[in-house]
Amino acid sequence: MVKEQSDKSALRDNFRDVGFWNPTQILPHEIGAVIHRMDLNECPHPPSPRVVEAIKLAANDLNRYPDGTCPELAERLSEQSKLPKEQICFGGGSTQLLTSIAEITVGPNENIVSPEIVWRRFQGVYRVVAADVTFVPNKDNGGIAVDQLIKSINNQTKLLVVLTPNNPTGLMLSEEEIYTVCHETPENVMLFIDEAYYEFALFAGGVDALSILKNRKGPWVLTRTFSKAYALAGLRLGYAFCSSEEVANALRLATSTFNVNGVAEKAVLAALDDTEYTKFILESNALEMSKIKTKCQELGLKYMDSVTNFISIDVGVPNGELVQKMRDRGIRISTPGYEQTGTFIRVSSGLPEETSNFLIALEEILGEMRN
Amino acid sequence: MVKEQSDKSALRDNFRDVGFWNPTQILPHEIGAVIHRMDLNECPHPPSPRVVEAIKLAANDLNRYPDGTCPELAERLSEQSKLPKEQICFGGGSTQLLTSIAEITVGPNENIVSPEIVWRRFQGVYRVVAADVTFVPNKDNGGIAVDQLIKSINNQTKLLVVLTPNNPTGLMLSEEEIYTVCHETPENVMLFIDEAYYEFALFAGGVDALSILKNRKGPWVLTRTFSKAYALAGLRLGYAFCSSEEVANALRLATSTFNVNGVAEKAVLAALDDTEYTKFILESNALEMSKIKTKCQELGLKYMDSVTNFISIDVGVPNGELVQKMRDRGIRISTPGYEQTGTFIRVSSGLPEETSNFLIALEEILGEMRN
Repeated sequence: MVKEQSDKSALRDNFRDVGFWNPTQILPHEIGAVIHRMDLNECPHPPSPRVVEAIKLAANDLNRYPDGTCPELAERLSEQSKLPKEQICFGGGSTQLLTSIAEITVGPNENIVSPEIVWRRFQGVYRVVAADVTFVPNKDNGGIAVDQLIKSINNQTKLLVVLTPNNPTGLMLSEEEIYTVCHETPENVMLFIDEAYYEFALFAGGVDALSILKNRKGPWVLTRTFSKAYALAGLRLGYAFCSSEEVANALRLATSTFNVNGVAEKAVLAALDDTEYTKFILESNALEMSKIKTKCQELGLKYMDSVTNFISIDVGVPNGELVQKMRDRGIRISTPGYEQTGTFIRVSSGLPEETSNFLIALEEILGEMRN
Repeated sequence: MVKEQSDKSALRDNFRDVGFWNPTQILPHEIGAVIHRMDLNECPHPPSPRVVEAIKLAANDLNRYPDGTCPELAERLSEQSKLPKEQICFGGGSTQLLTSIAEITVGPNENIVSPEIVWRRFQGVYRVVAADVTFVPNKDNGGIAVDQLIKSINNQTKLLVVLTPNNPTGLMLSEEEIYTVCHETPENVMLFIDEAYYEFALFAGGVDALSILKNRKGPWVLTRTFSKAYALAGLRLGYAFCSSEEVANALRLATSTFNVNGVAEKAVLAALDDTEYTKFILESNALEMSKIKTKCQELGLKYMDSVTNFISIDVGVPNGELVQKMRDRGIRISTPGYEQTGTFIRVSSGLPEETSNFLIALEEILGEMRN
């Protein structure tokens, strides 16, 4: 007891009593069982066979540290984006970059302006930097209230966080909203746009935020990942486009360049080459999501009109209970922000059979719960 | 120009003008050429074939996020260490954990006591947390001056850093020194022991710091990695033993649990199973290092008596120039802390042919430079 006490006193205030959140945990009864994993916004398909092949080849060299600047991939992204490769840096998933972006800009008690509905890790990031956070309520339809975000900026604000599409709403910003946020966020405030679901948005006819962001006068960072549309969540590779080399170097200091694993760059180059496979993933995803939306309409359930590989649905019954009943049937789903209150669930895209089993289970469970 | 200016003002002071350090960079003329990589303290042998096999199997599942608590590996390390698995956490290499340990304990301008001679990334870590650092000179033989470290602790000290064996000296602490640091570091100060080269130390008859550390009254963290003795630098998996679950959870918040890639746990379990291969790596390393030491004696060169897979040698001529001449011959070596002043070089263990080529080159270059 004395020990535990003295341990705590050695931690900074913001790191005390933090508990532990592990959404990736596999429960004992799930090991080896057939489980539909529809709670982590993963791609239900394995990576492209060409990716798997590239990893097999690279595995023999894992005694070596790779070049964390991913020179060949940076070159490729530079050509695509027309940004110099010095302004592109890499993270262990874009998740690592989220933390680093906050670290390079926000000191203890300085202000971050953030949408209220964001992926739960953002709450963790805000705590890591001991920020004072102004949470701005989302609009009635779940969308990010861009005007309100900008109005909430104060003299202590160092960072404005925007996500398009946003997790867990699945909604994207309009061209006008992106324009507003890029040009009305003051020049002394870092503007951070997370585009983890970028490829899905583009497929759904969304706007490429980068083309607008490039004309912003103040500093900015935009992050993307290979976790979702390239079926590589477990590879841990994301990247950031930065407004300047100065910002990119600050991020590289925060992450260190020993952060990227030795199979990641080769795997991603193979994934980018296999455009047919990415098309297959995006098309399959759109099809499965449309089945869910159609069934929701049949059942009279409202949902947020997601363009991504997950969807948040108002089931009209206590969400925690429904999530548990699904899990008892071997179907892992979640709630928008992992909360156990309210009536929204969040489900990610599955294989056709998984979608079908989920929808059957949903109808049955709702039948039980409504009685 | 105006742009660059405003970018900088959005960064915290400690992240401005940080430049960029990338020791893993492969120079253009080295791509595809036969290069002896003896500058990064890597293992010159590929990973065990069983590891490569495990990675091939795991690659198909990379569309999924792995459980970042590495449950099976944590169980194994828990059995070995007799620490509960709740007190064991994982990082993207122990490198990530170094940063996180500083983050959970040290606020801006708070004090860290550190040996003066440490791996260069530590300087980066200290800058990330904007610490006030008291650097304590090493002893004449290069060893860490434990008594001086403890005497340097002040009222603002939150973290004491010790490394055994230390990079870049390769020297380990004696049992008595470990005992001193564990029991004389005040209970309100976090004691951090880095054991990245643990397996080499143990092989050389060194002490297991953990057994002593466990009896410390105050908080502590000890880190190790699979990068070195298991030939898995590119896998990015390190771990931390913590004095309590409270400390481990703080680290997990800082790193997030989305930090470990999806092939890492399986690969490491295979590496731990292949004890013959690890023995081969440790024995080969000892043999190659002894060849270097013997040749140094012949050439009348002093060296630090490293127990690890690298060695720092006083070549008596400007080190930067000698490093460049080696690199021109396709042999990558470095200096202890990557500095370009002084007369010490640092070289890591190679394959037999690489050791031989390095030693021939060393004799020839010294011959040239002394004339």
